[in-house]
Amino acid sequence: MRNIANLLFKAKILKDIPRSGYHFLGVGKESVAEHSFGTVFIAYVMSQLEPDVDALRLISMCLVHDLPEAKTGDLNYVQKKYVTVHEKKAVADITRSLPFGSDLADLIHEFNEGRSLEAKLARDADQLAFILELKALADIGYNPPNKWLPFALKRLETKIGKDLAQSIMETAWDAWWFENHVDRPDKNN
Amino acid sequence: MRNIANLLFKAKILKDIPRSGYHFLGVGKESVAEHSFGTVFIAYVMSQLEPDVDALRLISMCLVHDLPEAKTGDLNYVQKKYVTVHEKKAVADITRSLPFGSDLADLIHEFNEGRSLEAKLARDADQLAFILELKALADIGYNPPNKWLPFALKRLETKIGKDLAQSIMETAWDAWWFENHVDRPDKNN
Amino acid sequence: MRNIANLLFKAKILKDIPRSGYHFLGVGKESVAEHSFGTVFIAYVMSQLEPDVDALRLISMCLVHDLPEAKTGDLNYVQKKYVTVHEKKAVADITRSLPFGSDLADLIHEFNEGRSLEAKLARDADQLAFILELKALADIGYNPPNKWLPFALKRLETKIGKDLAQSIMETAWDAWWFENHVDRPDKNN
Amino acid sequence: MRNIANLLFKAKILKDIPRSGYHFLGVGKESVAEHSFGTVFIAYVMSQLEPDVDALRLISMCLVHDLPEAKTGDLNYVQKKYVTVHEKKAVADITRSLPFGSDLADLIHEFNEGRSLEAKLARDADQLAFILELKALADIGYNPPNKWLPFALKRLETKIGKDLAQSIMETAWDAWWFENHVDRPDKNN
Amino acid sequence: MRNIANLLFKAKILKDIPRSGYHFLGVGKESVAEHSFGTVFIAYVMSQLEPDVDALRLISMCLVHDLPEAKTGDLNYVQKKYVTVHEKKAVADITRSLPFGSDLADLIHEFNEGRSLEAKLARDADQLAFILELKALADIGYNPPNKWLPFALKRLETKIGKDLAQSIMETAWDAWWFENHVDRPDKNN
Amino acid sequence: MRNIANLLFKAKILKDIPRSGYHFLGVGKESVAEHSFGTVFIAYVMSQLEPDVDALRLISMCLVHDLPEAKTGDLNYVQKKYVTVHEKKAVADITRSLPFGSDLADLIHEFNEGRSLEAKLARDADQLAFILELKALADIGYNPPNKWLPFALKRLETKIGKDLAQSIMETAWDAWWFENHVDRPDKNN
Repeated sequence: MRNIANLLFKAKILKDIPRSGYHFLGVGKESVAEHSFGTVFIAYVMSQLEPDVDALRLISMCLVHDLPEAKTGDLNYVQKKYVTVHEKKAVADITRSLPFGSDLADLIHEFNEGRSLEAKLARDADQLAFILELKALADIGYNPPNKWLPFALKRLETKIGKDLAQSIMETAWDAWWFENHVDRPDKNN
Repeated sequence: MRNIANLLFKAKILKDIPRSGYHFLGVGKESVAEHSFGTVFIAYVMSQLEPDVDALRLISMCLVHDLPEAKTGDLNYVQKKYVTVHEKKAVADITRSLPFGSDLADLIHEFNEGRSLEAKLARDADQLAFILELKALADIGYNPPNKWLPFALKRLETKIGKDLAQSIMETAWDAWWFENHVDRPDKNN
Repeated sequence: MRNIANLLFKAKILKDIPRSGYHFLGVGKESVAEHSFGTVFIAYVMSQLEPDVDALRLISMCLVHDLPEAKTGDLNYVQKKYVTVHEKKAVADITRSLPFGSDLADLIHEFNEGRSLEAKLARDADQLAFILELKALADIGYNPPNKWLPFALKRLETKIGKDLAQSIMETAWDAWWFENHVDRPDKNN
Repeated sequence: MRNIANLLFKAKILKDIPRSGYHFLGVGKESVAEHSFGTVFIAYVMSQLEPDVDALRLISMCLVHDLPEAKTGDLNYVQKKYVTVHEKKAVADITRSLPFGSDLADLIHEFNEGRSLEAKLARDADQLAFILELKALADIGYNPPNKWLPFALKRLETKIGKDLAQSIMETAWDAWWFENHVDRPDKNN
Repeated sequence: MRNIANLLFKAKILKDIPRSGYHFLGVGKESVAEHSFGTVFIAYVMSQLEPDVDALRLISMCLVHDLPEAKTGDLNYVQKKYVTVHEKKAVADITRSLPFGSDLADLIHEFNEGRSLEAKLARDADQLAFILELKALADIGYNPPNKWLPFALKRLETKIGKDLAQSIMETAWDAWWFENHVDRPDKNN
Repeated sequence: MRNIANLLFKAKILKDIPRSGYHFLGVGKESVAEHSFGTVFIAYVMSQLEPDVDALRLISMCLVHDLPEAKTGDLNYVQKKYVTVHEKKAVADITRSLPFGSDLADLIHEFNEGRSLEAKLARDADQLAFILELKALADIGYNPPNKWLPFALKRLETKIGKDLAQSIMETAWDAWWFENHVDRPDKNN
């Protein structure tokens, strides 16, 4: 059980690691944990729209895809040109002493390989979580997200990923605030 | 698809909502999204340790258990004495126009009922995510977490929840930093 | 006196509660205490411009109008559709054991009723404090405040409230920085 | 009215100015606006406990006592040894073109003189607002507040100020959270 | 050595002091230590481009030019109209008991006099560090930097300072991110 | 000149990169730029105490020692076990097109080699900047710095580095606040 407590504290550190991709933007911020939540949530939605998908596998893959960052840090695309990440070693050290270690390692490996349908969807969910942030920041009035959105959009591989992206791009980030909006003076801001 | 983009933006707002339970403590902070990630991760671990559990149900339940807070806000235990949360209305409005809306609503309902094994585990995961934070804050040297840990611990209902809590309480939050620790002057902080 | 120390600690927590209305905007932030300061300051200005007003009543009402949020939290207009705030219970529990409790309760009640001249002005001061923020954020270059300004402006009820709003809307938030501006190289930024 | 909009934007900047006294402590933080709110609230409480006091004058004095900091900045006690603050010039420039400018200037002057009963109480309210913060930080487990509390306590001049301070020092900052505390598993954190 | 430890802790406090010039802007923030780093870095670049300059003097001057702010605080141009900074007293008290105190004092004095070539370059480096921030904030989409850039640019005195400024103004703050940019789907954000 | 503007924007990003070593601690935070300022300042002090040292070389080395982190990110000691940093490539790409590129590259190389007297002092300055933070955090009341101080202290190699460390360890971080302390009620906090 001690090994499991250590695993939980490792996952917890993802709340303290800011996503370094935001340096591109000069605005916005997000912890790796927040990004992981967003990715898992999108994976859940995908699994509802695609009944043939192995939902548990897709969701679990998204949940743990950034766990190695507890050991490697979160590296943006410039940084990845200048460091070699030994993710396999990180995964090995995280999973070695766990009763379910090899299953956990398999999930991360499958995500990185990107070959199975679930892996392709998981990787698109990862991109979509970022696209969602970029779209909101662009709506608010910042310039840099408009530079980066085309790159993120181009990385999408699945039909459902592309459909979701299109829908995100066509929707104002705060449209849902105005659903059934009736302003009442007695219920101020 | 428009409704789904709106759903994603609703989930995204959970990154901006700070957990109000930290007002109890005077230290620490966490977004609802970060807490949700922690809860889902613990659920995943539980599902690995308990092969008889419906893992997909347990994990999905944890993922969406705080989604209604996009509409209701995050209320701590004092606040809950002074407001009545119409969570069913929030769930209805979030799920109404979604193709998979009733499944999503069922998950939240099952979590709140707390009767199924998966719901009991999910509720313990929710507590454990908070216990993990309290333990780390206590290790760092803050006083208030020691007042609140007993309440959180007492809320646990399942054997595995209690075992995980005991293991967390016996482990220093930063023990894993010292795994295989060899300080090398050329690899400074 | 013990009850009074507790009251002061309750007022103090308003510094830790962020105004949830800013979720609408994606930018800006303010604690409930900061908002209360802004509201009281506007009330003071109103009382100077309207000599017939009961200045003490107007100012005191603004000072305490958000005190119940120590117990209920700060809820934005979406959240208010999904929770019922038992403000009377909150007020009762805050004021019960205070020697001046019923006077304090009366102030909050009068604000919420919104019938007396002082209450109408206080409610406009509350809106103006938000309008001031929105105007500054719009000047800086953010888009969302322009969506919300019309709603806030429409909520104003008094002549003086409307006049102040017009003046705010016609004034650049940083105009006062340039009053008597003479740039001197020896006094850099 | 233009001059009044400028005045409101000047008061607004107090939300952006952090109190520099917290550099003493290494922990805690507060804007000048938040401190002003705390001071006004304590003044209101004092006025309720001391019916002979001119409540409007006491409260107004506390409200505007730090307004000149919009122009001078917030200077801690070390900084005050190394800069001379021309507060009268700041007050003159803030109030000159206001219809109620001389009344506003008088309030600030009376506070600084510290001779009237209301001014003495207002100055104690200013100290008490800081003592309240120091007490909470000490309860949480930080060392430095214990060094500075004796200085702040010694500055108090009035009977009611001293009584309030004693009550604050005898009360745990989070005692009110436990009022009527009944932990319910269904109402978690 | 005790005096030297105290000196180091004084320099350390510059990390906690936010530059008050950003109140002009409503966006951006920087500690005095960060600004000092930026200034020293620009000085280093200048010294490489101008081989006749006393590089050590130029760099050292930039390094310590804001050290007195540990005692006086950081005052923006409005604040400087309302306080008189006794920088000489601050310098005297910081340097008095140091073995190299008079050399340190001379550096700060030379910077403030602004007569030597090195002092002129150091003062331009100070402005350029701010211009760099303003340019980046303008690129991101904020309005206020465009108001203040002309003032900062006009303060420059040296040929190299003006050339660097022109180059900064012609370069997108994030141009270097796109150097050799090849987006690879397997190396996401 | 365009290449130089790009260099300045690269140095500027060091303000946005948080030092990842603070994840060890659970408290404190510092940008790479702030850390670099602290290191350079200590180098300046060392050069004053050691007249035989090449002051310009020592100071310049400290100034640029973390510049490659603009491209590689800031990696703590756990992360360095799991990634290989190609610092030479980062340095080459940063310096290639600069007129003074090879001098800049030499400085970073000399720091990393750690053989010259100046390099040894620079590396100790780097440690001392961290020791200063740890000591302050320990004084404030946090536990984790006490675990890490012994490692940082053991890394010191030079006599002057060790002497400075001893002096830091014997001095309260806030001792200088109390220099000539006379509390005056009219000069409150």
